[in-house]
Amino acid sequence: MSDAAVSPAVNEDETALATPFVKCLVRLIRAQDSYGSWEGQSDAELLADFIVTREQRRAIPIIGDPDPDVLWRLDLFYTAVGLAIEECSGLMASPMMEMSHEGFGCVLLTTGRLVVLSKTLRDVHRFGFETLRKLAAAGTKLVDDAIAVIEAYPDVARA
Amino acid sequence: MSDAAVSPAVNEDETALATPFVKCLVRLIRAQDSYGSWEGQSDAELLADFIVTREQRRAIPIIGDPDPDVLWRLDLFYTAVGLAIEECSGLMASPMMEMSHEGFGCVLLTTGRLVVLSKTLRDVHRFGFETLRKLAAAGTKLVDDAIAVIEAYPDVARA
Repeated sequence: MSDAAVSPAVNEDETALATPFVKCLVRLIRAQDSYGSWEGQSDAELLADFIVTREQRRAIPIIGDPDPDVLWRLDLFYTAVGLAIEECSGLMASPMMEMSHEGFGCVLLTTGRLVVLSKTLRDVHRFGFETLRKLAAAGTKLVDDAIAVIEAYPDVARA
Repeated sequence: MSDAAVSPAVNEDETALATPFVKCLVRLIRAQDSYGSWEGQSDAELLADFIVTREQRRAIPIIGDPDPDVLWRLDLFYTAVGLAIEECSGLMASPMMEMSHEGFGCVLLTTGRLVVLSKTLRDVHRFGFETLRKLAAAGTKLVDDAIAVIEAYPDVARA
């Protein structure tokens, strides 16, 4: 296959899949595959449910209770952020989430005595990203911001 | 009533009820009394369910799921710690709790980017204190420890 045959979207997906954050996310998903039923699936296939296109989003009611699958993906997403932070900084970042049954709440990631990420969650039942690239960008941004906070307060992150 | 007629236990209870932490706790409980049904009750009566004597504790099974009442008291306890921290430091301390249905979990209190309290929760179904004095002492210790952390990292607490 020559380079010319590769569409820009495929190239974009490959770049997204190569980011440390998405690699962490895929690793977490594969770690839950106790029976090897996902072994034949590519990384992009495993992440398919994280992708919610504009049309799909429009089809989801504005108000709705998040189902266990979307809560599982949300949890994976923030755990992967924590894992990627740990890879970068060597400090364990543990996520903590609190949510109402309606999908409103917040998530915290802490290392030592430092809050490295604090985010309000809303419309969790529609959690997803338009493309793999946007998924990778969103996770990577959270990781980078957290690393910047750790660098600003290194002693607190180790306290 | 002369001082001589007051038993040491009563005196001890009064000292406990006068601590800023217990005052916060009582205020939180009274704030939930929308219909005024607890107006005739003294502070000590309102806090009665927080007291679990040794005999009572022994009567509770070692393993058990926490009921909504005990979860409500646990939440009040840590919210009162946060409120007392705010009174002392002027910084809002918001609690966040995560728990399994079996009563194992953790609680975090944060102000700004600082984790001022981080505690593992276990045996929540037996949550309680032997005496009012011990309730006051436990809450006050958490408040004092949190204030010490804020004083150690004042800029992070305001970040």
